[in-house]
Amino acid sequence: MRKIDVSLTPFWRICPPSSIVLVTCITQDGKPNIITIGMNMPISAKPPLIAIGVSPRRYSHRLIEETGEFVVNVPPKGLVKQVILCGTISGREHEKFEEAGLTPIAASKVKPPLIKECISHMECRVAAEYKCGDHTLFIGEVVATHINEGYLKGGELDVLKAEPPSHRGRYYFTPHLIFKA
Amino acid sequence: MRKIDVSLTPFWRICPPSSIVLVTCITQDGKPNIITIGMNMPISAKPPLIAIGVSPRRYSHRLIEETGEFVVNVPPKGLVKQVILCGTISGREHEKFEEAGLTPIAASKVKPPLIKECISHMECRVAAEYKCGDHTLFIGEVVATHINEGYLKGGELDVLKAEPPSHRGRYYFTPHLIFKA
Repeated sequence: MRKIDVSLTPFWRICPPSSIVLVTCITQDGKPNIITIGMNMPISAKPPLIAIGVSPRRYSHRLIEETGEFVVNVPPKGLVKQVILCGTISGREHEKFEEAGLTPIAASKVKPPLIKECISHMECRVAAEYKCGDHTLFIGEVVATHINEGYLKGGELDVLKAEPPSHRGRYYFTPHLIFKA
Repeated sequence: MRKIDVSLTPFWRICPPSSIVLVTCITQDGKPNIITIGMNMPISAKPPLIAIGVSPRRYSHRLIEETGEFVVNVPPKGLVKQVILCGTISGREHEKFEEAGLTPIAASKVKPPLIKECISHMECRVAAEYKCGDHTLFIGEVVATHINEGYLKGGELDVLKAEPPSHRGRYYFTPHLIFKA
């Protein structure tokens, strides 16, 4: 198999798909917003930390910086169109909860709401913020976690029931089981 | 749907699956190693930056710190057992290339090798390093990229051909197409 050099911008065109999450944040006067985030990963168990990447051009960037809080909501397969919508329009001009038909419900420890229609939720407080090129890496300390009843299997998210979407470019995928170690 | 509070360690048990990559690194005297990494994501297009999370307890952590270089290799579905093996044994006592039956080939700009059997490759130099709880976040500047001939589709990794694995706990998945935006 021949390897070819590629010079792609962005280079992530040749990365594997990224799991998508819906991150909620809130203005200082209490108006919630949603941003679709592909750049997300857990980074520490103790303390519990999750990393998300947000462009400084995004409306949510300012909200997260101002309040120091956000919630990571894991959508099921059925929300893929809402995921795309929330990644396309801006909270500067749109009421995303209303336009996407999503329902905010109160979080337990932070001000941004959970998204009722999502399956699992991590309430976060910003523990660190790093400028990484054209994005900001927000490191969130996870202060509370929730999951829909019936979606835990063996102490983990039941991935095959939730079918959380991932994407690469305009292609959206759900996880198909190939192996259990 | 009732939401239940969960207190799971690690909390990522309720996160969506993570794409898995095989990261190669090298000792100062030229012995290559492989580490299986679930914590990985692109973080900037300009400059091109990718973030990986590595525990300081791992042998590869020291190698990456010492040389400041690593390569992110994207495996196809067919390598899932090698992925598990390289995430289970340590390069302190094992020759992972040999034991996993993988083939090192020279990279173009860094010393750690590419893995011939992988589909796409990002050669990286460490641009920043952040301690995040029990892991270190290495930010790699992507200095060269390669992909197997025939695996680009519309300028992107042909995900449905490569079927790069993701995992959550002991469950391994490949991406199943559900939607094209």
